[in-house]
Amino acid sequence: MTDQDFRRRLDEAAAATQATLDALLAPSPLEGEIARPARLLEAMRYVALGGGKRLRPFLALESARLFGVCGESAARAAAAIEMIHCYSLAHDDLPAMDDDDLRRGRPTAHKAFDEATAILAGDGLLTYAFDVLADPATHADPLIRARLVLALARAAGLGGMVGGQALDLEAEKAAAPLTQEETLRLQAMKTGALLRVCVDFGAILGGASAEVAAALGRYGDALGAAFQIADDILDAEGDEAALGKRAGKDAERNKATLIGLLGLEKARARRDALVETAVAALADAKLGEATATLAEAARFVALRSS
Amino acid sequence: MTDQDFRRRLDEAAAATQATLDALLAPSPLEGEIARPARLLEAMRYVALGGGKRLRPFLALESARLFGVCGESAARAAAAIEMIHCYSLAHDDLPAMDDDDLRRGRPTAHKAFDEATAILAGDGLLTYAFDVLADPATHADPLIRARLVLALARAAGLGGMVGGQALDLEAEKAAAPLTQEETLRLQAMKTGALLRVCVDFGAILGGASAEVAAALGRYGDALGAAFQIADDILDAEGDEAALGKRAGKDAERNKATLIGLLGLEKARARRDALVETAVAALADAKLGEATATLAEAARFVALRSS
Repeated sequence: MTDQDFRRRLDEAAAATQATLDALLAPSPLEGEIARPARLLEAMRYVALGGGKRLRPFLALESARLFGVCGESAARAAAAIEMIHCYSLAHDDLPAMDDDDLRRGRPTAHKAFDEATAILAGDGLLTYAFDVLADPATHADPLIRARLVLALARAAGLGGMVGGQALDLEAEKAAAPLTQEETLRLQAMKTGALLRVCVDFGAILGGASAEVAAALGRYGDALGAAFQIADDILDAEGDEAALGKRAGKDAERNKATLIGLLGLEKARARRDALVETAVAALADAKLGEATATLAEAARFVALRSS
Repeated sequence: MTDQDFRRRLDEAAAATQATLDALLAPSPLEGEIARPARLLEAMRYVALGGGKRLRPFLALESARLFGVCGESAARAAAAIEMIHCYSLAHDDLPAMDDDDLRRGRPTAHKAFDEATAILAGDGLLTYAFDVLADPATHADPLIRARLVLALARAAGLGGMVGGQALDLEAEKAAAPLTQEETLRLQAMKTGALLRVCVDFGAILGGASAEVAAALGRYGDALGAAFQIADDILDAEGDEAALGKRAGKDAERNKATLIGLLGLEKARARRDALVETAVAALADAKLGEATATLAEAARFVALRSS
């Protein structure tokens, strides 16, 4: 697969996700909803439709495609993951958390609206993600719907993303720096779990065997770990214009990163080894040529410049 | 049913809910969770285990009991609703929202911990509610699990509770007071939807016919509306010691209430008529003597002193 082919697929997935999110966040209330308040909906749209690479939906769509699953099921499942990702950014940006004014080159939600609206827009997107997954429109089989809900809730909750963010805030205040083991666990929770669940979604939607699902899971874990190292490198070296947010924050805040623990060179080597692990796990899944896009995704994630 | 019998049942449901929440919020991670960070878990326990009447779980448990459903299914479903209720209180109390220091006679979550932890504890409980519902431990039938998730997400999201809170904050800042119609819609969203979903949970767990489910739904809607008027009356007249929170806030903040629109006497009459509507809806459900506790619950909700 050429780099150009890969980027085209990534862009197509982003456009499809944007369209799905746009339709899901329409003004008309669904059955069981009383009304959709205009300003809150506007803030949820601001948070969810603000662009980004849409890496998570891409991973979910490509994983589902390995099993021939596409269309509405994959699109809605991918959009639900993106809603969770976007809500977490809006809450993480709040003054009480990371206190960021800029996100993807635009004012953060609490700057564009106000703090209360940013909190509620996050709560609304978090809740809506599970609504979308549990809705029969996502899949005719309720077992698949229930499994999607459970997998996403585990990845996003206190034992996953929310727990990782809590550990991160604690680590900033702690007297002693985190050990390497603690740092890896924090990152696996904060960013790894949600990246991993993208491929789990493919396996659930596709009815993968336990063995294939486990191989994809190893891919997802390795990709998630490589993503975080790449993120730390970008923060240390990146320029703000390309990132669309402030760089150099990690050092400023004494955040736990592998660069701080290992140095830049060893962190890069570890990142490259994780890409190898990810690609090897895909081979273990024995799904043939179809996994080429996901292999490219691991390389892309590790070497991206924004 | 005597008042004493009713209160005993209410207390029993509260104790059972406390035990279920305590077990769900244990330190050991579940399958799919990486770890449960101690301080975040402590904050989630503070928010969820801080007492209260546990009216919502009681309504869910009693509704399920109409169909002979009890045990783990009903207990977990009821606990999930209470998690949503408790998370919403923690977020509503934040400085950017209602800015309250006291809740149930204790410091609010952001006072006892800090703002970031209160936000994350809320996010964690919101997410965990859907985890609990989607878990096979709640019900063997995945269709029932998916229906519980969908009903709760609709009641809690932008077309329900979160949307109602957003409208409430907007109304405080608005130049013109809300009309009666707007006030009723706001209240149906902010507090009514979550009370209504408690009886919906009973109907879902019990496999009620569409007709019976609709009759119970009318009960839930009327009870929710009566609850809100009673709440407004308590705020206007109540004493802080009994409430465990500050009284007189509504007038101070120019909140939209039916008392403001109709006056106290007409608001009381409306509340009493809603209790009649609720009791009549129960009779429509044709479930016999079993509904006596829910009928008493409507009276209790309307006439409570805290």
